[in-house]
Amino acid sequence: MQLFLAHIDGQKFQLDAAEVNHCVRVLRKKTGDQIFFISGDGNLYEGTIQLITKSVVGGSYKISQKSWGAVPYELTVAIAPTKMMDRMDWFVEKAVEMGVSHIIPILCDRSERKVVKQDKLEKKVLSAVKQSLKGKLPKISPMVHFDRALEEAQGAVAIAHCEQTERMAWPAFFQQNSGPLTIFIGPEGDFSPNEILRAQEAGAHSVHLGGSRLRTETAAIAAVAMVYGHHLGE
Amino acid sequence: MQLFLAHIDGQKFQLDAAEVNHCVRVLRKKTGDQIFFISGDGNLYEGTIQLITKSVVGGSYKISQKSWGAVPYELTVAIAPTKMMDRMDWFVEKAVEMGVSHIIPILCDRSERKVVKQDKLEKKVLSAVKQSLKGKLPKISPMVHFDRALEEAQGAVAIAHCEQTERMAWPAFFQQNSGPLTIFIGPEGDFSPNEILRAQEAGAHSVHLGGSRLRTETAAIAAVAMVYGHHLGE
Repeated sequence: MQLFLAHIDGQKFQLDAAEVNHCVRVLRKKTGDQIFFISGDGNLYEGTIQLITKSVVGGSYKISQKSWGAVPYELTVAIAPTKMMDRMDWFVEKAVEMGVSHIIPILCDRSERKVVKQDKLEKKVLSAVKQSLKGKLPKISPMVHFDRALEEAQGAVAIAHCEQTERMAWPAFFQQNSGPLTIFIGPEGDFSPNEILRAQEAGAHSVHLGGSRLRTETAAIAAVAMVYGHHLGE
Repeated sequence: MQLFLAHIDGQKFQLDAAEVNHCVRVLRKKTGDQIFFISGDGNLYEGTIQLITKSVVGGSYKISQKSWGAVPYELTVAIAPTKMMDRMDWFVEKAVEMGVSHIIPILCDRSERKVVKQDKLEKKVLSAVKQSLKGKLPKISPMVHFDRALEEAQGAVAIAHCEQTERMAWPAFFQQNSGPLTIFIGPEGDFSPNEILRAQEAGAHSVHLGGSRLRTETAAIAAVAMVYGHHLGE
C-alpha cells in the first residue's frame, strides 16, 4: 500500500509538504483520486484529492481504520546514541517496526556522540512507520541530558547496565509492571557508577539484558523485541 | 579484552593466519607474552607465545574458562538473505551477539538475492563473537535451497510467514519445545504458499511474529531476541 503523511484540519486533509512531489510527480495522482494516509494520531485515513497545486495536495477524508497497527504497550527507550550514526539509525528503524512509542537520545557521562540530526531520525521513523503499517507516529525527542530524561521519565523506569550490582532481568521487570515503561540504555562504555546511583535514587530499577556483552544498539533492540514478543499472543 | 582466533593441535595452539599481522605488527606481541584466544569450541583459552615467524604465531595454552559466554539454547535461523546485503550483515552481527547457534542462508521462490559472500559473513560472525565475549563460534552455512534446509532442519522446526493460516505465536512455540530449535524466515515478499505447504508437510509449524509488518532482517532479529530474552533468568 502506498501511504502518505498528511495533516488534518477539521474536515480537510493536506499532504505533508515533503510528500507532494512523490504524490503528484512520481505517482501522478489527480483530482478525484483516492489515497491512504496517516496523520500520526493512530488512524489510517482514506482521502479524496480535491486540490492540487505546485506545493499543496489536499481534500476530504474519512477514517479507514482506527488504531491501525496499534501495539498493546507503551514503551519509551532513552538511549545514548552510538558513535557510528548508522547504528543509531538502524536501531530507530527496528524499534519503530516493533512498536516503540518514544525514543529519547540522551547525553551521558561517557557519551562519544554528543549531537544527533533530529530531522534525519524523524525521517527514519516515518519510513519505518509506513513500512510496518502503523497509524501512530512514535515520538523522537531532541537530545537531552541523562538527568533531565530521568526526571521526566514516564511509568515504570528501568536502567540497563553492566555493573555487578543487584539487577533484575528486563523481562521479569516489565512483566511485573503494567502501564507505560521506560528503559535507559547507555553508551558504548556503559553508564557511569554515578549515573547508575542517580537513576536508582530517582526510582529507576537496575535491569540486565543477559550475560552477552551487547552493543548499545543491540541491547536496545533486544529490549524492545522482548516487550514486543511478550505481547504477541494478544 | 583483546581476543584472537586460533587453532588447537594437541598441546599447541597456532593463531589463525588472518590474526598474525594484528598480533605481531599492531599489538607487538613477543615470545613469552600471554594472549587470550578462542578456537570456536566454546572455551576461552590463555596461550603463551613460543614461536613467532612472518606468518605463524604459536605456543602452549591452558583453558581459562569452559563454555565461555554460552547460552542455554540451540537456535538455528534459516533465512532468505535480503536484497540489500548490509541488512543481512546487520542481522548476522546482532544474532551472533544474542547467541544464535547456526545461520543458514536459504534460496526461496521469491528470493531477490541468490548469492551471498560466505567469507564476508564468516568475518561478521567472528567479530561479533569476539565483541560479545563468547567461546563458541556459530556456524554459517553456504546458501542452500529452501527444500534442502527443510530436509536437514534440526529439532523443533517453525516457519514464520504472513499468510492468514492457523499460526502460533513464536514465543508460544519455543516455550512448548525443549531442545534444538530452527526457525525459517522468508524473503521480502514472504514464502510462497507452496513453500509454506511443503514446510508443513515436512513437519514445520507455522508461526507468526505479531501484527507489525516486519522487514526480513527485523523479523529474524526479533525471533532471536525473544529466545534470548526467554532464557535471561537462567
